[in-house]
Amino acid sequence: MLPERGRSLLTSPASKEYHQTIVNAHHRPLHGNLGSIGSIFNPASVAIAGAAEGRIGQAFLACLVDSCFHGPVYPINPRGGEINGIKTYRNLADAPGPVDYVISCIPSDSTRLLIDDCADKGVKTIAFFTAGFSEMNGHDGRRLEDDLVFRARARGIRVLGPNCLGVYNPGIGLSFSSDFPGQSGQVGLLCQSGGNAIYFIRAAAQRGIRFSKAVSYGNAADVDESELLDYFAADSDTKMVAAYIEGVKDGRRFFEACHKLAALKPLIILKGGSTGAGVRAASSHTGALAGSEEAWDTLYRQTNAIRVDYLEEMVDILVTFNYLPRLEGRNVIVCGAGGGFSVITADDYARYGFDLVGLPQHIRHTMSEHIARFVKSEAGFMMANPVDITNVITFDSHYGTLQILAGFNDVDLLVGQFSVNNSVWPASGSKYTVWIDTFTEALAKVHAETGKPSALIIHSMLTPFDLEKANTLAERASQAGLAVFHSSARAALALKRVQAYHEKTGPCSA
Amino acid sequence: MLPERGRSLLTSPASKEYHQTIVNAHHRPLHGNLGSIGSIFNPASVAIAGAAEGRIGQAFLACLVDSCFHGPVYPINPRGGEINGIKTYRNLADAPGPVDYVISCIPSDSTRLLIDDCADKGVKTIAFFTAGFSEMNGHDGRRLEDDLVFRARARGIRVLGPNCLGVYNPGIGLSFSSDFPGQSGQVGLLCQSGGNAIYFIRAAAQRGIRFSKAVSYGNAADVDESELLDYFAADSDTKMVAAYIEGVKDGRRFFEACHKLAALKPLIILKGGSTGAGVRAASSHTGALAGSEEAWDTLYRQTNAIRVDYLEEMVDILVTFNYLPRLEGRNVIVCGAGGGFSVITADDYARYGFDLVGLPQHIRHTMSEHIARFVKSEAGFMMANPVDITNVITFDSHYGTLQILAGFNDVDLLVGQFSVNNSVWPASGSKYTVWIDTFTEALAKVHAETGKPSALIIHSMLTPFDLEKANTLAERASQAGLAVFHSSARAALALKRVQAYHEKTGPCSA
Repeated sequence: MLPERGRSLLTSPASKEYHQTIVNAHHRPLHGNLGSIGSIFNPASVAIAGAAEGRIGQAFLACLVDSCFHGPVYPINPRGGEINGIKTYRNLADAPGPVDYVISCIPSDSTRLLIDDCADKGVKTIAFFTAGFSEMNGHDGRRLEDDLVFRARARGIRVLGPNCLGVYNPGIGLSFSSDFPGQSGQVGLLCQSGGNAIYFIRAAAQRGIRFSKAVSYGNAADVDESELLDYFAADSDTKMVAAYIEGVKDGRRFFEACHKLAALKPLIILKGGSTGAGVRAASSHTGALAGSEEAWDTLYRQTNAIRVDYLEEMVDILVTFNYLPRLEGRNVIVCGAGGGFSVITADDYARYGFDLVGLPQHIRHTMSEHIARFVKSEAGFMMANPVDITNVITFDSHYGTLQILAGFNDVDLLVGQFSVNNSVWPASGSKYTVWIDTFTEALAKVHAETGKPSALIIHSMLTPFDLEKANTLAERASQAGLAVFHSSARAALALKRVQAYHEKTGPCSA
Repeated sequence: MLPERGRSLLTSPASKEYHQTIVNAHHRPLHGNLGSIGSIFNPASVAIAGAAEGRIGQAFLACLVDSCFHGPVYPINPRGGEINGIKTYRNLADAPGPVDYVISCIPSDSTRLLIDDCADKGVKTIAFFTAGFSEMNGHDGRRLEDDLVFRARARGIRVLGPNCLGVYNPGIGLSFSSDFPGQSGQVGLLCQSGGNAIYFIRAAAQRGIRFSKAVSYGNAADVDESELLDYFAADSDTKMVAAYIEGVKDGRRFFEACHKLAALKPLIILKGGSTGAGVRAASSHTGALAGSEEAWDTLYRQTNAIRVDYLEEMVDILVTFNYLPRLEGRNVIVCGAGGGFSVITADDYARYGFDLVGLPQHIRHTMSEHIARFVKSEAGFMMANPVDITNVITFDSHYGTLQILAGFNDVDLLVGQFSVNNSVWPASGSKYTVWIDTFTEALAKVHAETGKPSALIIHSMLTPFDLEKANTLAERASQAGLAVFHSSARAALALKRVQAYHEKTGPCSA
């Protein structure tokens, strides 16, 4: 009854069922009907089977209402009555209009009948939140799942999951969490884990990422990762794709789908279950791409797909693609607050192959002249690269300094950084909380005026007060076109990976 | 006027002054008087020079009042009057009692007179928050700093900084931030950056770390890193030491101090400025340990000092030393919420050399029987390792499961994990917020009853609501003796490093 049913034992590296599943999958027919998968993402109407008070069906209903789904929503409950003030229907047939997409929140042993009802109603897709299928150990789940897919296919119905949360398409108000952004964007997401999908979409949204469509696809009994990749490759709304994948149904087909997509747009993959005895055992039994580390290495080497190890890294790379152009060179200037943090930020960019370029005399001189307008002494400043201007607080002082730095032509990237936590030293509510506001505003303005590629690292959030502040600033900064990160190491790593991608895919150049 | 004056250009890897400083340092006499440095940490009375309304001196005063400093505090202000309701004195001589420790918040060009006043008053230590010394480029800062130290030494006064925040000794209520813990602990901290010191102490405190003494020592013009290491080596209250160091005054002496200390107790070092053209240039000029990556590598190889790259990693290692024994083997069980997160956690432990041990049939059977008391179906559970029990919420269900897992003798470490953010799916205030409470409580109880080494990974905080919850749980869990982390990767990395330390330092064994 929780998001993590979206991930399953099916794809758990430690389960024996894992490789058996892979073997079975090879014997099943594959679908490649882009028409039918397109309809999965764009239903005109939705029904929720099992929309009972206090159960998960009610939560799905609330999500659709909160997200202003563009068509009718029909809660189905055999007992009738109302839920959340909305009339329920005793069965699908009673719904007064056609139904394209059904969210199944009923127990697994009732799903046979549901499929028949859906077929009679002309339903195109069932997203099974329902779990208890192939991910179960020592039960009849595998048989039940095969049967489910067989029946659905026979009646022309596509199956998402089972054991998933289904589709998020902000363009039509279809969502599985009330707090997902209502605006569409350019990122496509396929995510085998429901819990990870929720966390990922929320985390990315906080840093300005918006989605064309996202899908939590669970056990992938019918619609699988390869078909989803093909869909996103063809979808013109989707400019880049993020994928969290725990198992692969067909290695060769998956490789081809990745290859095709990654030739067209950035594809970032996080393989869940990429180490450990479980995965190695699975791979030694099947040789499937799912389990073999070598096969994955080959994939990354032979395609343009970008590997990440963490959800946060996936967000970082999307932010980099969204907000930064291909840099012309590797020269970075860091400016912000906190000498110690400046040093660590400098180390991070250097560690990932960037140059903390020295500031020429005329830049330092102009900067000193500017600073002298605001303070008597440069004590406590760092006037080299990294630049530390903690000791001036006004917008004009920040804006002027950043203008001077952005005007230095040898700089490819201007990086602002500050600790949110230390802004409250020595006491919460002190004037230093103003610093981070004015600095963010100044960097945004300089970026808007100069077009200099700019990133902002907002870090060290220890208290709810800090995080509230950081989230507000991140939203403001990303709206102003700044690439926002929460760690200098992750910012530098993402930039390195994206630059490598550009070098791999870009036109031949001198 | 901000904490980051605690770090300085002196030690910035990109500054030309850096290596010049190192060269100069070799020609200066060194102090090794443990008596005098002991008095630095334990003053009976404090005066604040420059305790003016709205300036930093007022903040230092507030810190001492809030921290209930054990002796008298004398704010000094030539204008007299009161500050924060406390009588000020026009000069140090007017203070009605002896003064051991002076916090200097006056401009650098007034510090000569201050030293004379301090000498007349019998002051033992001056902590110079005052900046504008050797860290300044193209000014007389170097000369001013040399003069400062020369005069102070001539009058028998020890100097902290300049450009620092000074001492935190919770045992006597001496502090430079009002929110630092009032209780003493077993960690000694030396930190060249004031801003990093504040962030580090706060971050560590949230996870149950307490300090014997900490010091922000800035430019290290008199009291330097080696002397501080010697002090902590001899201090019986200090059981382990964390150090953030940007520059080293005397490489040989530093090596010896590290070697001696690390033979006695764990020493964790973060070298700020460990990459980049600046540091390499400095090292090629002086061959000092400060700049040479090779020298640092040698240090880590030839001593027991533990290297980290981030402040957060330093906290992780302290938490590991504080809350976990040396593990007998590498077998780990992961139990918690969220299948996707379970998979990533499993990957992380595997990545760092731990074994996600398979659960024997009898354990799985007992666990299934236990779970069957609470739910009709195991749908949505993972009953392998990692174990996912998202779908049961009561204390008894969590407690029983964890008891069974802790009773599995082949397990060396029991790891609990959950995403705080997903606990609020589908809506904030739902019953799933209860899950993380009951799980934390159950893990604490099982740990208390069985003594099984246990860690709790509380991760994925995206909102202030999440972080409030996470901080509360982290406090509760660490009070119950659990090692608390905020990332499975960092938890596993810290454990790997600490296990390596134990293997390096432990008694010869079979």
